[in-house]
Amino acid sequence: MSNPSSAPKPKLAEIIAIGSELLTPQRVDTNSLIITQNLNLLGVEVFTKQVIGDDRERLTDAIQRALSRADIVVLIGGLGPTEDDLTRDAAASALGRKLLHSPEQEAILAARFRQINRPMAQNNLRQTYLIEGAEVLPNPNGTAPGQFIKTPRGAIALLPGPPRELKPMVERELVPRLKPLLPPQVIKVRSFRITGIGESDLDTLIAPIYSKYTNPVTTVLSAIGDLWVHLRAQGNTEAEADRLLKEVGDPIAAVLGERVYSTDSEDTLELTVGRLLRERKATVATAESCTGGIIASRLTDAPGSSDYFIAGYVTYTDQQKHALLGIPQDLLDKHTAVSEPVALAMAEAARRLSGSTFGLATTGYAGPSGGTESDPVGTMYLAIAGPDHANPRCVRVRHGADRYRNRALATQFTLDLLRKTLLGMPLPS
Amino acid sequence: MSNPSSAPKPKLAEIIAIGSELLTPQRVDTNSLIITQNLNLLGVEVFTKQVIGDDRERLTDAIQRALSRADIVVLIGGLGPTEDDLTRDAAASALGRKLLHSPEQEAILAARFRQINRPMAQNNLRQTYLIEGAEVLPNPNGTAPGQFIKTPRGAIALLPGPPRELKPMVERELVPRLKPLLPPQVIKVRSFRITGIGESDLDTLIAPIYSKYTNPVTTVLSAIGDLWVHLRAQGNTEAEADRLLKEVGDPIAAVLGERVYSTDSEDTLELTVGRLLRERKATVATAESCTGGIIASRLTDAPGSSDYFIAGYVTYTDQQKHALLGIPQDLLDKHTAVSEPVALAMAEAARRLSGSTFGLATTGYAGPSGGTESDPVGTMYLAIAGPDHANPRCVRVRHGADRYRNRALATQFTLDLLRKTLLGMPLPS
Repeated sequence: MSNPSSAPKPKLAEIIAIGSELLTPQRVDTNSLIITQNLNLLGVEVFTKQVIGDDRERLTDAIQRALSRADIVVLIGGLGPTEDDLTRDAAASALGRKLLHSPEQEAILAARFRQINRPMAQNNLRQTYLIEGAEVLPNPNGTAPGQFIKTPRGAIALLPGPPRELKPMVERELVPRLKPLLPPQVIKVRSFRITGIGESDLDTLIAPIYSKYTNPVTTVLSAIGDLWVHLRAQGNTEAEADRLLKEVGDPIAAVLGERVYSTDSEDTLELTVGRLLRERKATVATAESCTGGIIASRLTDAPGSSDYFIAGYVTYTDQQKHALLGIPQDLLDKHTAVSEPVALAMAEAARRLSGSTFGLATTGYAGPSGGTESDPVGTMYLAIAGPDHANPRCVRVRHGADRYRNRALATQFTLDLLRKTLLGMPLPS
Repeated sequence: MSNPSSAPKPKLAEIIAIGSELLTPQRVDTNSLIITQNLNLLGVEVFTKQVIGDDRERLTDAIQRALSRADIVVLIGGLGPTEDDLTRDAAASALGRKLLHSPEQEAILAARFRQINRPMAQNNLRQTYLIEGAEVLPNPNGTAPGQFIKTPRGAIALLPGPPRELKPMVERELVPRLKPLLPPQVIKVRSFRITGIGESDLDTLIAPIYSKYTNPVTTVLSAIGDLWVHLRAQGNTEAEADRLLKEVGDPIAAVLGERVYSTDSEDTLELTVGRLLRERKATVATAESCTGGIIASRLTDAPGSSDYFIAGYVTYTDQQKHALLGIPQDLLDKHTAVSEPVALAMAEAARRLSGSTFGLATTGYAGPSGGTESDPVGTMYLAIAGPDHANPRCVRVRHGADRYRNRALATQFTLDLLRKTLLGMPLPS
């Protein structure tokens, strides 16, 4: 792969999470993701992550090896007050330094316990020991302070395990201390949030563009009906990083076109749709059968959604489609509830009954069983009705028998019908 | 800690996941959870997990070290057809064995490509090489076969990275090959799914019971308003494992009482409620304000939920509460929409309008802003109406300003009102 950038060779980091509880089948290490993200934005690449149980010898060995091959070593957890909390000891051994009692830390800890009105246990004194030469990383959200020690190659940090303690400590304490140790460089990112295309089709479109570059680094993430392309460029100057993002990002934007619903990495389709509705002073109501309320719950996820969401009708039976939405019984009898005429009538009813600008509707065989010969399981009719009475629209989609996936896809497609309508884009036929 | 069991010292496993893409800030390694769960059920404890980028030397070194200290070594990923897929090479080097071309694997792979009607690339021949002495683990879901090699201490396995290929291979191929290598023993599990109590209150109740035992191993997991206690006992006989589960599980069941909604680890509160409704031939409808359709969407999550779910009304504005549910305007004016009288009227309206046995309702200030002096942000009124007209019930809960958490808690509490009502348990006041 060619690399058209002159960015320096990245510094390397190794992350070690400590705690036997992290080795159970139910625990995922999300802390390392927070740390990786912050290190990446400093131009540091993580090349190994480990999870190690509470075993002093193994931990000391792992820290020693990490120090020998990585510039930045980050240790997570094992800073509590119990015997099992071995990180301080093991890190001191690996560094060949002493652990020293800090009267200052003891005073801070004592004050904290007074504040929460609890006695301080003898155990907690373990948390007042610092590795020789360590800088304290204050922890306003817990009893274990972090520690930061410069090393010949870079630095080692000891961070507490609870994410609500770790995250602010990384952002406010660790990053500012690492920055001066790293070569000056600029990292910039660019995101595309995408719907209406599958992951492999997306990759067929954009891999020819991004795969020629190692800088920016391109990551593709996928959820059901929802994709995210993330570019991260590294340059010696802001202009260089921007140029790289433009060089790769602009052609990606061009081939993706209207499938990009947002360029803000934190955005969701429901937030995008909500913003468009608010801008246009428009409102929406939903009539859901196969999605059972998911569209309404996503549209009301955002604070202030009462500005644009008026009402939701979950009509799970034919009788309710008739009684609540007024769908004529002969329409239901003639076409069945899973049909284009019924989906269109539901969307129009949602709009009319609530007085909203738009009505959305879903009806289908979500699975895992059900369906007919002409409309097998996974067939769903998704409809939108709007102020232009001539043009209510319905699309028919068909997927497999996976109920969870079908409901999520139908929700995503239906929200996207509204997005495209609001933006005046052509709808799929 | 005392350990009243005579279970043998567990065998140890180390898991290594391979691939630079796993070291991005967005990727969580869920494969290792599947493997850990299956190994735990064989009495094997995982003591280290690692994620390593595509680096031959580092990977070979890590595999060598793992072989020297673990009985079972499991390698995940890096079995694809590209240059970056180094697992085969590195494992062969670490074992000091050759990689041999397998004409049989080539025939299998060629047949697979014919079947999906695609040409086989030259690259794919990399996937036809086996480590000397390896047993093939067939992969009906992908092109990379797994490999299994016995070692002096136990075994090493090479598994493909995509979870839908890995999971069936672990269950159908790996576990049956590991079983005969391990000491005969029985592993049994017992689960409690719990709602209506916080995590620290739960631990205060049950830690005095379980913390005396290292066997069974007790794990507590928590989601918002939803807790899971999992016991795993190891014994030389079925009777011994059962006795241990009883010894620890029965006192836990006793202190938790009605808070346990299921003893099936796969169960959810909505599945439990759905089962109870179906057993009693009862039905339900929902009138949601602050939860915006989440209760309806959870109740319709299960296949066949049309047996008991009739209709959902998401009334997000006062006007809709009046127009759709018929809540008298003077009730709304006098008490506001966030009040006990309105919640009760909504539950009763949902029931009456849909003809359901039960009506559920939510109204509140989900946050992050809103609220009044007497009902600050986070205050929610949750109601149930049933066939006994004298006894519609409403509870008032109050939490913080976290919208996501408030909506999830309100959903959980409201579903639990229905569970308790169906079981004839007293409701909270």
